[in-house]
Amino acid sequence: MDKLVELSYALDTFYFLMSGALVMWMAAGFAMLEAGLVRAKNTTEILTKNVALFAIACIMYMLVGYNIMYPDEAVNSVWPGISFLLGDDNTVEEVMGSEGETYYSNMADFFFQVVFVATAMSIVSGAVAERMKLWSFLVFSVVMTGFIYPIQGYWKWGEGFLDELGFLDFAGSGVVHMCGASAALAGVLLLGARQGKYGADGSINPIPGCNMPLATLGTFILWLGWFGFNGGSELKISDIGEANSVAMIFVNTNTAAAGGLVAALLTAHFMFGKADLSMTLNGALAGLVAITAEPLTPSPLLATVIGAVGGVIVVFSILTWDKLKIDDPVGAISVHGVVGMWGLIAVCFSNEEASFTAQLIGIVTIFGFVFLSSLLTWYLIKLAMGIRVSEEEEYKGVDFSECGMEAYPEFTTEGSKR
Amino acid sequence: MDKLVELSYALDTFYFLMSGALVMWMAAGFAMLEAGLVRAKNTTEILTKNVALFAIACIMYMLVGYNIMYPDEAVNSVWPGISFLLGDDNTVEEVMGSEGETYYSNMADFFFQVVFVATAMSIVSGAVAERMKLWSFLVFSVVMTGFIYPIQGYWKWGEGFLDELGFLDFAGSGVVHMCGASAALAGVLLLGARQGKYGADGSINPIPGCNMPLATLGTFILWLGWFGFNGGSELKISDIGEANSVAMIFVNTNTAAAGGLVAALLTAHFMFGKADLSMTLNGALAGLVAITAEPLTPSPLLATVIGAVGGVIVVFSILTWDKLKIDDPVGAISVHGVVGMWGLIAVCFSNEEASFTAQLIGIVTIFGFVFLSSLLTWYLIKLAMGIRVSEEEEYKGVDFSECGMEAYPEFTTEGSKR
Amino acid sequence: MDKLVELSYALDTFYFLMSGALVMWMAAGFAMLEAGLVRAKNTTEILTKNVALFAIACIMYMLVGYNIMYPDEAVNSVWPGISFLLGDDNTVEEVMGSEGETYYSNMADFFFQVVFVATAMSIVSGAVAERMKLWSFLVFSVVMTGFIYPIQGYWKWGEGFLDELGFLDFAGSGVVHMCGASAALAGVLLLGARQGKYGADGSINPIPGCNMPLATLGTFILWLGWFGFNGGSELKISDIGEANSVAMIFVNTNTAAAGGLVAALLTAHFMFGKADLSMTLNGALAGLVAITAEPLTPSPLLATVIGAVGGVIVVFSILTWDKLKIDDPVGAISVHGVVGMWGLIAVCFSNEEASFTAQLIGIVTIFGFVFLSSLLTWYLIKLAMGIRVSEEEEYKGVDFSECGMEAYPEFTTEGSKR
Repeated sequence: MDKLVELSYALDTFYFLMSGALVMWMAAGFAMLEAGLVRAKNTTEILTKNVALFAIACIMYMLVGYNIMYPDEAVNSVWPGISFLLGDDNTVEEVMGSEGETYYSNMADFFFQVVFVATAMSIVSGAVAERMKLWSFLVFSVVMTGFIYPIQGYWKWGEGFLDELGFLDFAGSGVVHMCGASAALAGVLLLGARQGKYGADGSINPIPGCNMPLATLGTFILWLGWFGFNGGSELKISDIGEANSVAMIFVNTNTAAAGGLVAALLTAHFMFGKADLSMTLNGALAGLVAITAEPLTPSPLLATVIGAVGGVIVVFSILTWDKLKIDDPVGAISVHGVVGMWGLIAVCFSNEEASFTAQLIGIVTIFGFVFLSSLLTWYLIKLAMGIRVSEEEEYKGVDFSECGMEAYPEFTTEGSKR
Repeated sequence: MDKLVELSYALDTFYFLMSGALVMWMAAGFAMLEAGLVRAKNTTEILTKNVALFAIACIMYMLVGYNIMYPDEAVNSVWPGISFLLGDDNTVEEVMGSEGETYYSNMADFFFQVVFVATAMSIVSGAVAERMKLWSFLVFSVVMTGFIYPIQGYWKWGEGFLDELGFLDFAGSGVVHMCGASAALAGVLLLGARQGKYGADGSINPIPGCNMPLATLGTFILWLGWFGFNGGSELKISDIGEANSVAMIFVNTNTAAAGGLVAALLTAHFMFGKADLSMTLNGALAGLVAITAEPLTPSPLLATVIGAVGGVIVVFSILTWDKLKIDDPVGAISVHGVVGMWGLIAVCFSNEEASFTAQLIGIVTIFGFVFLSSLLTWYLIKLAMGIRVSEEEEYKGVDFSECGMEAYPEFTTEGSKR
Repeated sequence: MDKLVELSYALDTFYFLMSGALVMWMAAGFAMLEAGLVRAKNTTEILTKNVALFAIACIMYMLVGYNIMYPDEAVNSVWPGISFLLGDDNTVEEVMGSEGETYYSNMADFFFQVVFVATAMSIVSGAVAERMKLWSFLVFSVVMTGFIYPIQGYWKWGEGFLDELGFLDFAGSGVVHMCGASAALAGVLLLGARQGKYGADGSINPIPGCNMPLATLGTFILWLGWFGFNGGSELKISDIGEANSVAMIFVNTNTAAAGGLVAALLTAHFMFGKADLSMTLNGALAGLVAITAEPLTPSPLLATVIGAVGGVIVVFSILTWDKLKIDDPVGAISVHGVVGMWGLIAVCFSNEEASFTAQLIGIVTIFGFVFLSSLLTWYLIKLAMGIRVSEEEEYKGVDFSECGMEAYPEFTTEGSKR
């Protein structure tokens, strides 16, 4: 019998680690997506931001964030969770004595959680691309991943007040995606639009991304990683019911993405007369964000519809922000914020335990807290060191001023640069 | 004892889901491979086709295809498999009462199957690249993934007549790869060659791909995904014999790819005096296709040889199609079709249950059915909406006419465009 | 009870296969990293080397290397390990009778080991890039993967004399990474620097990589694959203690990479005043190499520090080799060799069983043997067929002379080429 408990613990831990590895891979997805959608002259810098924010998230969440978000991991009342930093894990006796309560390694749990923080932060980098100072961004990422994300994460997943209220967010349409988008919106508002994006005459000038295969690769990477993101959020796989649940989540995650993609492709086709690849990719991501709040209870048919609605929303959202002259180069605020809200509301269509009121309270709380605390943080950073590069630096490209290195030194010529 | 059954079910389901995720990843592989092997002016469009076909395959197979291919999943005689669409799965009682017959989640099975359909369809997009209308292609993909693929899939994997005849195709050299290639060939024949590919004087003009790192990345992605493709096709891993089988399949899949790669590299070297990277990559893929019909029974040594023969065949096949003026920009018909046939025949070298006659009948049946039904479908689409872009659109690149967006707006200049 | 043993065997085998698949994926990482860091005119050739060396490693290790490295797998005294080539694996009886000694498939073990060889060889290709003859390199890879790597691998992992001495190298900072770097150094010394790298006046001319997104993607792929590399090296996951260990290894591997990345970013910032992306990426890889010798016993905090020290070392190491006019285009000797040594020494900080003397003996032995045997091999190849392309070939790019194919035919123009 003991050996059965051990095997079960091992399987759940392994499932958790594989899921975490898939979520870690999403960091590469964001990096490729954003590198594909910016201009060549800003590519090295966005790559640097993406790799650096991932590393910062891992370190800050280890040092501070995890303890804020999951205070019950604390060993004593003075310094919560220090045992974790020192490398302790469940003993055999604890697992055996827990009667099934302890069914996976704490370290695996930390690994799974830490890559989620990085996802939230990755959302920010795209929205503020092509004009924000590198180091100001990295300072913000320290605050975001060490404090802002964990505090609101605690409210839901750390069994805080949002959880008690009955707010439902299975894998993080709100806690991760809308959180990231709210921080991004605050930054974009303080930062302003890119040079030349909005004409004095009210015109909106599209600024095409420089490398669409990279953007497509990034989308595929995110799609793959999302199986870990949603599938791992079931937290357990070691019995028939849990295994069925994880399988259902895989199917629903996949079909919601497919629904979002097709819906955005058709919407773009009818609106612009062209099969707009950027919108199509954002449609797939919108489908994924939409299903993330509840990937388990919908049938595959309903999941497809939830994703498809997300795919339609994202097209109109991107157009609307542009009309408001809120400049988001990659559409991150629409994909993760607006569609994240849709996902949180859509929980009510399939989960009987959901309450529309609780979902609304969750949306308002997370958005309000993250937006305001981010705005304050961005503002303090702006005072201290500035957040926007100079006009000339922006014109020449931030690769030169921030990184001293071109991304494609042989492919771009003065004549081809935009 | 019950807990043992549960754990076993959970492990098999998890293994199936991980395998499915790896196969899903192959969609990214095809997208990168094809984007790397076409010209820059047709890149956005081939990317759009690849992401859209994946989404369409997922939706059509869910709505129609899975029920055609596996009719025994039906709950009643009126509408087969509707319970699946509504999200039902095995109950604990069913699993416990099945005496080992039911050992993984139905949803996991669907997930694994659905990504196979997308693979078959991905093969088509490469062969018809650079000249086919986007929407005509997508209409075809609806028919292919909803009907053509599932019907022939039923004949073998749904326990239809090919299965009864003793036709062996472990993971789909025929059902997936040759199937995709047969549909592609029908399309290519109706579509004709790209402008400038074959000179009036009988000359064959190579049209180099624009981005070889992408093509290489795509090949590596496919190689990785193939461990799920072949390894997952064992369907079970939860006892010693099955675990050994899955391990053997991993080793053989890997070594066949290695054999195919080296053989194609050497063949190209001796024929052209150069280490032709395109041929080398196609050699690896040929090795993978060749072993797919039977990755379990050969020894690693034999698997290497089967892959290597595939690698030699693919070089000569690509040259031969070109002599016949059948224009396949990425060599998909050779890799998946011609070598797929070789793989089906090679089953006879290691599997005692194989019969050469049954393999031949399978090849002729699948090729005949898929080729003819695809030809009819392509023809009807051609009548209804046309399948080929205009000469001017082809000259300017389909990215502009179909997607309204360049893939690399800053890297290509009028002077550098071909 | 028997079923428990079977399930346990299945889980460990599955864990091993997934780990191996992740390590196989590292081959794509090296290919993308190196393709991103060389110039456009040498890209097709470096890609060809990367795919070909992987295939050669798989075949040579199967035919020769595995038997040298693990002679106890032999079935008789004449030809060790021939049963493996013929496809035998543990029988149910052997597993049941082994009392837990035999807990995974031999084939899974081979699969895991074979992808390690390829990793070692991939390290070499980057250091000798842009000037070495393709076929000379491939001949070296035959010797390296068939003989040099397995011999020193036997000394440690095959339970040879280094293992008996108490030399500790958990996942291969020495056996894999320093081994690859030592072979690379020997090649670089015989080969000389690239044209124009070092001026006659003592100046050092930076030669920027042509595609930084690819280099970043390669780094992310390696980071992901490293979870398999280190995590799989625990060899077992099927009980509580082992599962905890694998989880700890995942956490430490991740945090060491994060530490290395941040440290290198900061070091580069303070030294050059710019956020140097190449150095930052090499910092992440340095963190990974540093923790590889002992990813289990350090606490996450200590692992971060070990990685961070690696990240500082790599920056200074790269600058130092350049001062010595040892030209390593991608910094592979620094990342894998110098930091590999650091990792082997750092074992002493957390593992009580480690002895500084034994670690030093291991470093000297592996470096000495691999460097000298590689130098001899390179020298013989130089005598037989030359190792360096002609001056004109180097100037035009090895893509043209070796592969007859440009990597980016539409992106580079005469004017943009460097």
